[in-house]
Amino acid sequence: MPDLLATATDRLSALRAHMLQRAWQAVLVPSSDPHLSEYLPEHWQGREWLSGFTGSSGTLLVSAHAAALFTDSRYWEQAEAELAGTGIDLVKLDGPAVPAYVQWLRDQPTSGAAGDTGAPSVLAVDGQVLSLGSVAPLREALSAAGWALHTADDVLAGAWPDRPALPTAAVYEHLPPHAATPRRDKLAAVREALRAKGATHHWVATLDDLAWLLNLRGADVDYNPVFLGHTLVGLESATLFVGEGKVAPELAQRLANDGVSLAPYGQAAESLRALPADSILLIDPKRITWGLREAVPEGVRVIEATNPSTLAKSRKTEVEAGFIREAMEADGAAMCAFYAWLEQALGREHVSELTIDERMTAERARQPGYVCLSFPTIAGFNANGALPHYRATPASYAVLSTPQGLTAEGLLLIDSGAQYLGGTTDITRVWAIGTPTAAQQRDFTLVLKGTMALSRTRFPRGTLSPMLDAIARAPLWAEGLDFGHGTGHGVGYFLNVHEGPQSISKAIPVPDMAMQPGMITSIEPGLYRPGQWGIRIENLVLNVALPPAVPNAAPGTPEHGEYLAFETLSLCPIDTRCIDRSLLRDDEVAWLNAYHAEVRRRLSPRVSGDALHWLEARTQPL
Amino acid sequence: MPDLLATATDRLSALRAHMLQRAWQAVLVPSSDPHLSEYLPEHWQGREWLSGFTGSSGTLLVSAHAAALFTDSRYWEQAEAELAGTGIDLVKLDGPAVPAYVQWLRDQPTSGAAGDTGAPSVLAVDGQVLSLGSVAPLREALSAAGWALHTADDVLAGAWPDRPALPTAAVYEHLPPHAATPRRDKLAAVREALRAKGATHHWVATLDDLAWLLNLRGADVDYNPVFLGHTLVGLESATLFVGEGKVAPELAQRLANDGVSLAPYGQAAESLRALPADSILLIDPKRITWGLREAVPEGVRVIEATNPSTLAKSRKTEVEAGFIREAMEADGAAMCAFYAWLEQALGREHVSELTIDERMTAERARQPGYVCLSFPTIAGFNANGALPHYRATPASYAVLSTPQGLTAEGLLLIDSGAQYLGGTTDITRVWAIGTPTAAQQRDFTLVLKGTMALSRTRFPRGTLSPMLDAIARAPLWAEGLDFGHGTGHGVGYFLNVHEGPQSISKAIPVPDMAMQPGMITSIEPGLYRPGQWGIRIENLVLNVALPPAVPNAAPGTPEHGEYLAFETLSLCPIDTRCIDRSLLRDDEVAWLNAYHAEVRRRLSPRVSGDALHWLEARTQPL
Repeated sequence: MPDLLATATDRLSALRAHMLQRAWQAVLVPSSDPHLSEYLPEHWQGREWLSGFTGSSGTLLVSAHAAALFTDSRYWEQAEAELAGTGIDLVKLDGPAVPAYVQWLRDQPTSGAAGDTGAPSVLAVDGQVLSLGSVAPLREALSAAGWALHTADDVLAGAWPDRPALPTAAVYEHLPPHAATPRRDKLAAVREALRAKGATHHWVATLDDLAWLLNLRGADVDYNPVFLGHTLVGLESATLFVGEGKVAPELAQRLANDGVSLAPYGQAAESLRALPADSILLIDPKRITWGLREAVPEGVRVIEATNPSTLAKSRKTEVEAGFIREAMEADGAAMCAFYAWLEQALGREHVSELTIDERMTAERARQPGYVCLSFPTIAGFNANGALPHYRATPASYAVLSTPQGLTAEGLLLIDSGAQYLGGTTDITRVWAIGTPTAAQQRDFTLVLKGTMALSRTRFPRGTLSPMLDAIARAPLWAEGLDFGHGTGHGVGYFLNVHEGPQSISKAIPVPDMAMQPGMITSIEPGLYRPGQWGIRIENLVLNVALPPAVPNAAPGTPEHGEYLAFETLSLCPIDTRCIDRSLLRDDEVAWLNAYHAEVRRRLSPRVSGDALHWLEARTQPL
Repeated sequence: MPDLLATATDRLSALRAHMLQRAWQAVLVPSSDPHLSEYLPEHWQGREWLSGFTGSSGTLLVSAHAAALFTDSRYWEQAEAELAGTGIDLVKLDGPAVPAYVQWLRDQPTSGAAGDTGAPSVLAVDGQVLSLGSVAPLREALSAAGWALHTADDVLAGAWPDRPALPTAAVYEHLPPHAATPRRDKLAAVREALRAKGATHHWVATLDDLAWLLNLRGADVDYNPVFLGHTLVGLESATLFVGEGKVAPELAQRLANDGVSLAPYGQAAESLRALPADSILLIDPKRITWGLREAVPEGVRVIEATNPSTLAKSRKTEVEAGFIREAMEADGAAMCAFYAWLEQALGREHVSELTIDERMTAERARQPGYVCLSFPTIAGFNANGALPHYRATPASYAVLSTPQGLTAEGLLLIDSGAQYLGGTTDITRVWAIGTPTAAQQRDFTLVLKGTMALSRTRFPRGTLSPMLDAIARAPLWAEGLDFGHGTGHGVGYFLNVHEGPQSISKAIPVPDMAMQPGMITSIEPGLYRPGQWGIRIENLVLNVALPPAVPNAAPGTPEHGEYLAFETLSLCPIDTRCIDRSLLRDDEVAWLNAYHAEVRRRLSPRVSGDALHWLEARTQPL
C-alpha cells in the first residue's frame, strides 16, 4: 500500500489542515517524548516524519505558510542535505533556541495577525513532551511577541494517519553480579532523600532513572536499554506504570516482593491526578513534563529538586567500576581485532564506512556481556568526519578502499560504543588512511593536546564540571580554533550513553554538576573542517578520589579538601602516525607513552594473532 | 572626652537596648552603604564600630544574648585576633552567607520565640544599605526559619551616639587628556542603551558608575577616588544628587552646560518618589539598594538590567589603554626605586612592614599623575604574608631588619597599587629575604605557573570569565593545593581597584561576565600557609583582540569567531631567586624571560643609578 502522505510537503499540508481546524497559527514539534528521552520511540518521531530530518536533535516550527527546522552546528550539513527540496528552512542555532523561534515567528508575514479580533496568535505544542522547566520561558518569550502558547493537545494526533504504535519489547532484569546494588537498597536510598526533603511521594518519568532504580532494562528504543514507563515512589511502596504484557509474571512477582506493584502505562497521569491531597510530591523540573505537572492535583504540595536517582546513578560504585574496567577491556579487545582487520584490508579489499560499522559491531558482539551498541556508529571518512553526528547509510556512504587500492588518502574518524551488562562504552579515534598531511597532523595534535590536558587535570571534589571545559579547549584556542560541541558528557552504567548531571561544557554550572567520586564523563575535544576532515579524540574517564597530600589538613591550609583525578577507562591506541611531534611537549609525550603502555598491558592478554601484532605496533612509544 | 561606649561589649549593650525598644529579636549589620561600596565612609562603618573587626568584608549578626561575625577565609586570622575578648563569635564562611545567618539564628536558644504570641521573630537590617537583589533570598530563608525581615529603619540610628557625619571632600573633574571621552558622549551612550530597552529614566547609585559617567572624581572614601552621590538620568537631562558645597560653582556650570543639574544628596529618595507615573525606570538590581527600590512610585514600570555604565566602563578605550601603559611604567619605575633601596637596606637598616609601606608610597607619590594609593598596601613578612588581606599597623607589625642584620629569613609579600590620572594599578610580588627554603621555592613556583598559564591563555571573545579560573589553579590542584580567593577581579580606570562585571573566579557565570576587548582584570593566584608564609603573584592584564587566524572565517569552520589575548600590563620583575627551576617547563621559562626582557625595555628609560642596576639584576634571564 503506497504511503498516501509520502513527502514532507504532503505531510505539512495535512498538519496545516489540522491546524486550521483547531485555529492554531503555528505548531512546534520538538524532538522529545513523555520521558524527555534522547532516543525516541517511533511513535514520537513526528519531527522526522514531517520534515525528513533524521538528526537526533532539532525542532520543527510550522506556520500557515512556512516551516523551519532549528538545529545546532553538529547537524547543519546533514539538515541542509535532508531538507533539500522540502521547502523547510534551516535555522542554524548558535545560541538559545527560544529567541530563535520567536524571531522566526516575528519574521513570518502573517505572524501576530490572528484575524481582526486582536486576540494573540496561537502556537500549539504537545505539553506531554515538553519539560516542565522549559514552558515558562517559552510562554513568556512568545507572549512578548503577541503569541499565546497552547499545550493541551498532542498536535500530531489528528495529522499523522499511520502513526506507529507504542513499542512492546519485554522488560528484563539487570541481574547480579553486574547489578551490584539491589533495588530494595536503591528504593531505600531514594526514600531517605524524600524524607530529608519532607516529601511523601516522588514521580520518576525519565527512563534511565527508572531502569536504574528498579534494576530493570528494556529494548523500547535503540541504543538505550530502557523501556517506556513511569514510577510513583511512596514512602512504603512503589508503582511501576508499564505497558501490559511487557513484564513477565515471574518478574512481576519479584518486583512485588520488593514492594513494587504494576499498573498500566496509560494510567500514569490518572494515578497522578488521584494523589491524596495531603501528599508532598518531589519532582524534577528538568526530568518531568509540563503535561504531568499539570496532572498534579491542586492540594498537593510540590517540591522541585533533582531526582535522587539522577544523583545516585551518576556515582558508580566500586563494584560497578570494576565491571566497567572489564567492559573496557572487552571493548578494547574488539577494537584491536577490528583495526587489525581494517589495516590489512585497506587497499586490498572493498572497505566502506558501512563495512566498518558492520565489522566493528560484529567484533563487539563477540565479547562477553555484549548487549547492543550504545549509539549509532559514526564512521566518517575525510569530509564525512567533519560532521560530528554523521551516520553512513546505504543510500550515502564513502568507500575507502577497493581490491585495486585506496580510493583516497586522509583521515578516518570512528566514534562508537556498546552496551555491556557491566558498563557502557563510548570512544572516538581518528586514523591515518595513507599518509596524513602536515595540516591534518597539526589538527590532530592540537586536539590530542586538549584530550591529554584535561585527562591529566586534578581538581577539588565538588568542582563544577563546566569549570573544567576551558582546559581541553586551551590548546585549540591558542591557535584561534574551537569546536561547536561540549567537551564531555556523563555516561551511564549499562544505561544511556548520555546522562547527567555533570557535563564538561560551556553550560552555566548548577550545583548538581559538582564533580563527585565515581562519576564517569567523556573527554572529547574535536576540530571540524567542513568538506575536508574531522578530528575527535575521546576517552571515558572515572572520577577517583586521591589520597590526601597532607592527611586531615585543617580548613584554611592550602592542602585542605579532597581532590579527584581522572582515571582513563577507555583502552585503545591513539594513532601516533597522525601526530606532529614538534607540537608536543615532553610531558605530553610521556603521558601518551604511559597510556599506550597501559593499553598494551591490559589488552594483550585478551587478544592474539593479528590483533596482538596490531596492538603491539600501535602502542610503540613515541 | 572619654568615649562612653569604649568597648564592643558596651556598644552591643547599647544596640540591644535599642533592639528591645523596637521589639527586634536580632539585627544584621553588613559591611555596606547606600551605594553598595567596598570602601565605606565612617558614617557607615557601624559593623567595625560595634565589633572592632576592621576587615573590609564581614557581617555582624546580633541577637539578644549573642553576636557573631561572618567572614570568609581571607579574614579568619584577623577576625580571631580582633574579636578576642569581645564575646563575639566568629563564623567562618565557606559558602553562601545567608544559610549561615539562618543556621546561627536557629542555634540561638531564644530563636523563633518572640513571646507567646506565635508571631515570628524579627530580624532588622537597614534596607538602605542592602542590594535589591539580596533581599528576596534573605527574606525567604528567614521566613522558612520563622523569622520576619524588617528593612525600614537605619538600625544604628538610635544606638550610635557619636556617629561620624557624612564626608564633605570636594568633587573635582577628571580632565582631558586622561578623561578621553567627554561626559556628553558617555551620557549619550547611556541614553542610547535606555532607548534600546524602552526606558525613560535610569538611576545610578554606585559611586564608580557615577564618577565614570560624569568624568568626576572625589575623596569621600579612602583609595576609591569617588564621592557620595546619585544620578537620575533622563532622556534629555540628568540630575546629580550630591552634598551641598562639594561641587564648586564653576564645575556646576560646566555640568549644567552638559545638561546635568545639581540637587542635594539628601533629596535623592524623595526625587525618586516623585518620578512621573508614566516613567519607565531602568535599575540594576545588583547596583541599587532595596531602600531605593522601595522609593519607586507604584505606577512606574521598572526594567531590571545591568547599569549601561558598568558595561561601558569595563571596556577601556584605546586612548585609555595608552595612558594605562604609561601609568604602569610610572608604577614600575617607582617599584624599581623602592626595591633597590629595600635590598641595600636589608641587614643594614631598620626595615619593617611599616617602613616598606611608607617608602613604597613615597616612591609612587613622586611619579607623574599620582593621586593616591588604590588600596591599603599589604606588606606581609613570613606568617603575615599568609593573611591575604593583612595590614600592618603601628600596634602590630613585623620587623625584617635592623642595623645589626636580618631579623629572620623568609618571604616578603607586597600587594600594592596606586591611582594615577591615567589608570589604576594593583600588583603583588613575593621576595626572598635571605635564602628561601626548598618548600618556599616549590610554593612560589607552583603559584607562578598558575599566573603564567592564565596570562598566556587565548580564548574566544565572549568567553564567560569564570570559565578561565581553573587554568590558573590547575598547577596547584595538580599537587592537591588551592587558595581561598578569586583568581582575578576587574579594575577601573582611575577608579575602583575592584570593579565588575567580569571576575575570574568560581562565581556562577552570568552573561555580563563575557570577556570583551578592553577589559582589565587581575591574575593573582596564591598559596597561604597559616603561621608560615604566603605567596601571591599578581599582574593586571588587558583583553586585546587578536588578528583573525583566517580572515572572515565562515560560521561552522573551526577558525570562526574573534579571539582575545591578555596583554600583561604590570611591569615589575618576578623574583627568580624564589623559583625551583626543576618545576618549570622550557616554555614557561621562555615566557618568564620574555616578560623580564619587556620589563627591562619599558622601565630602563625611566630609572637610573641604583634603581637601574636593580632592574638589570632582577630581569636577568633564567
